[in-house]
Amino acid sequence: MRKEHPAMLAAKYTGERTITVEEQEPSELKPGEVRIAVAYVGICGTDLHVFHGDMDARVTMPATIGHEMSGTILELGSGVEGWAVGDAVTVMPLDWDGTCPACLAGNQHICQNLDFIGIDTPGALQETWNVPASTLVRLPQEISLRDAALVEPVAVAVHDVRRSELAPGDKAVVIGAGPIGVLIATVATAFGADVVIAEIDPNRRAAAAEMGLQTVDPSSVDQVAWVEDWTGGAGADVVFEVSGSAAAVLGATSLAKVRGTLVVVAIHSQPRPIDLHRLFWRELRILGARVYERPDFERAVQLVAEGAIPAGRLITSVVPLTEVASAFEVLEAGQAMKLLVEVAS
Amino acid sequence: MRKEHPAMLAAKYTGERTITVEEQEPSELKPGEVRIAVAYVGICGTDLHVFHGDMDARVTMPATIGHEMSGTILELGSGVEGWAVGDAVTVMPLDWDGTCPACLAGNQHICQNLDFIGIDTPGALQETWNVPASTLVRLPQEISLRDAALVEPVAVAVHDVRRSELAPGDKAVVIGAGPIGVLIATVATAFGADVVIAEIDPNRRAAAAEMGLQTVDPSSVDQVAWVEDWTGGAGADVVFEVSGSAAAVLGATSLAKVRGTLVVVAIHSQPRPIDLHRLFWRELRILGARVYERPDFERAVQLVAEGAIPAGRLITSVVPLTEVASAFEVLEAGQAMKLLVEVAS
Repeated sequence: MRKEHPAMLAAKYTGERTITVEEQEPSELKPGEVRIAVAYVGICGTDLHVFHGDMDARVTMPATIGHEMSGTILELGSGVEGWAVGDAVTVMPLDWDGTCPACLAGNQHICQNLDFIGIDTPGALQETWNVPASTLVRLPQEISLRDAALVEPVAVAVHDVRRSELAPGDKAVVIGAGPIGVLIATVATAFGADVVIAEIDPNRRAAAAEMGLQTVDPSSVDQVAWVEDWTGGAGADVVFEVSGSAAAVLGATSLAKVRGTLVVVAIHSQPRPIDLHRLFWRELRILGARVYERPDFERAVQLVAEGAIPAGRLITSVVPLTEVASAFEVLEAGQAMKLLVEVAS
Repeated sequence: MRKEHPAMLAAKYTGERTITVEEQEPSELKPGEVRIAVAYVGICGTDLHVFHGDMDARVTMPATIGHEMSGTILELGSGVEGWAVGDAVTVMPLDWDGTCPACLAGNQHICQNLDFIGIDTPGALQETWNVPASTLVRLPQEISLRDAALVEPVAVAVHDVRRSELAPGDKAVVIGAGPIGVLIATVATAFGADVVIAEIDPNRRAAAAEMGLQTVDPSSVDQVAWVEDWTGGAGADVVFEVSGSAAAVLGATSLAKVRGTLVVVAIHSQPRPIDLHRLFWRELRILGARVYERPDFERAVQLVAEGAIPAGRLITSVVPLTEVASAFEVLEAGQAMKLLVEVAS
C-alpha cells in the first residue's frame, strides 16, 4: 500500500550560480528503491563546479544535486530486502548498466555509461531522496549522522590509496591540502604509510598540521631535495596529485622513486605537460583514479567509526537546507574545509 | 699469463657528426672481464642521437659506441667461470652499482647510477671488446651471429611487453612502425595478443605489412573509431607509444579501454601534454619502460632462435666496420629498418 507524503523541501540549481529551495511533491517510489529521510549533505568541489555552470551540459535543470550524505530509511519499495525503516545509511551514488565492456570486465564503478547519482540524476539536497537499494551502505551505531556525511569523500580517499597499492612503511607525498588531500593523507597514514602534504597555502598547511599531518611548503623549500633527503635518496613510493595545478603535475614525477607511483586524483580538464623522460628513466607508473568501489565505502565507514578521520576538524561549518546558497558562497571563498548542509537531524 | 694482442680497429665518435675508424691497442683485460671478438653490431636510434651530438654531455670523446652486438669469447679474465673461449655470446650492456635504493629494491636494471655500456663506457664498435662476464648472454647454436645482433633490441621489446602485463587474447595498439615498434608488435603477437600498428609513413606501413603485421593509417582513418570497432566498443587493452610524437601521446589515451595501459616506449626529451581527464575517467595506467632485465634477454634469445623475429626483413643492410660512417648516414636518411656493422664474421 502506497504511503501518502506531504510536500517537502528540495534545493534546485537553476543555472547562473543560482540555487533556490522550493517545496515539491516527493517522487514516486519505484520497485527496488528506498526513500531516505536525508540528514546531512556535504558540498564538494564537483557540486561547486555545477554551481559555477561548468557542468551545465551534463545536469538537467532545475537540478537537485548532492551526493555526500547520511540519513535514515523512511520507506522500502517493493522487492527490497535486507533493510528496515529507520536504518541509518549512506549511499554509494553509482548506478551502472552492467552490460558495457567495463562492467563485464568487473569495473562497474567506472561503467562506460555510468549514472552518477546527484549529478546525472537527482541528488540528496532534498528532505527525502529515492535511491536504488543496491546503493545503500549501512552505518553502524557508533557513527553520528553528522560524521557519516564524510563517508563518501573518505571512500574517495580510500579508493585512491588502494589504487596506489601503497604498503605499510611506504613514504607518500600528497600534493595539495584541500579536503581530499587531507583525507588521502589521513587514510594513507591509517594504512601504515609515512606521509607528508605539500601545500603552498599557509592556512591550509596550518589546518593540515593541526590534524597532526606533516607538511612542507614547496614555495619556500626545494621539495625534490626535501623528499630525497626524507627518503634516504630513493624518492617517494607514492605521490598523490590532488592540487589540480599544472606546475604540480609537471613536478610530481621528480618526487617519485624508481618504479614509484603517481596517482592523479585532481580533475584536470586540460591536457597537462608530463615529464615523460622522468617516467621513462625511473620506470614510473601514473594511475588515474575515479570514484570508488564497495570495499572502499566499507573501509571508509570503518575508518569514520574508529575515529581515524578528524571529522570535528574537517567539518568547518553546518548550515540549514534553507541557507544552502550561502554554503556555496562560503565554499567558494576557499576558507571552509568541509561544509555540511543539515537537511534534518 | 697475459696474451699479446695485435693492434685492432675501433670506431671513434669525435663530435660534430664524425665517426672515424682507427687502429688502437686492445685495452687490458681486468679480473672478471672477458674479451670478445665482435662479429656484428646493430646501430640504433640512441647511437644516432650520439652521432647527432645530442648526447655530447654524456659520452666521453673520442667515444667507441655500440651496444647491440654478437661475438665470440676470445679470452677470459681472471676469476671468470662458466664460460670458454669460442663461446658465442651477446651482451646485456648494463652495469649497476648494487648499492643504490633502486638496486636494493631489486630494480638493478634501472640503477640510480647505471653504467650503460656503449654510451657511458666503451661499446662494441671495435674488433675486440672487454666486458664484465656478468653481462654475457649465451647464444645457442641455432642462431647465426648476424641474427644475434638483434637480440638486444628484441629484449627491449620483450621488456616493454612484459611491463605492460599484456595477456594472451589482449588487443594491443602499437603507435609507430620503426624498428622497436615492429619488434614490439612481433613480440606482442608471439605473446598471444591481437596487434595493430598505427603508422603514418606509407613505406614503414608497407614494411610492417610485409612482415605480416596488421596496420592502420591514422592520417586517413579515425583511429579512435577504428580501435573502438575492433575491440567491440571496449578500447585496447594495451597501447605502446613508440612514435615519439607529441600528437601521438596526446591521442594515445583515447585508444585504451577502461583500466587499460599505455606504455611510453619512445624517449620524449620534452614534457608532453597528456589527457589527464581521460586518464581519470577510465582509470588508465601509464607506464615508463626502460632497457631490460635478464629474463627479457633470455626470452629474446629464445624468440630469435625460434624464428619468431623476421630477422631477414628487419636487417636491411650490412656494412663493414671501415664504412661505419656511411651506416649512420643511411640510417639518418630514414630508409633502413635495422642496419648492422660487420666487424668480423
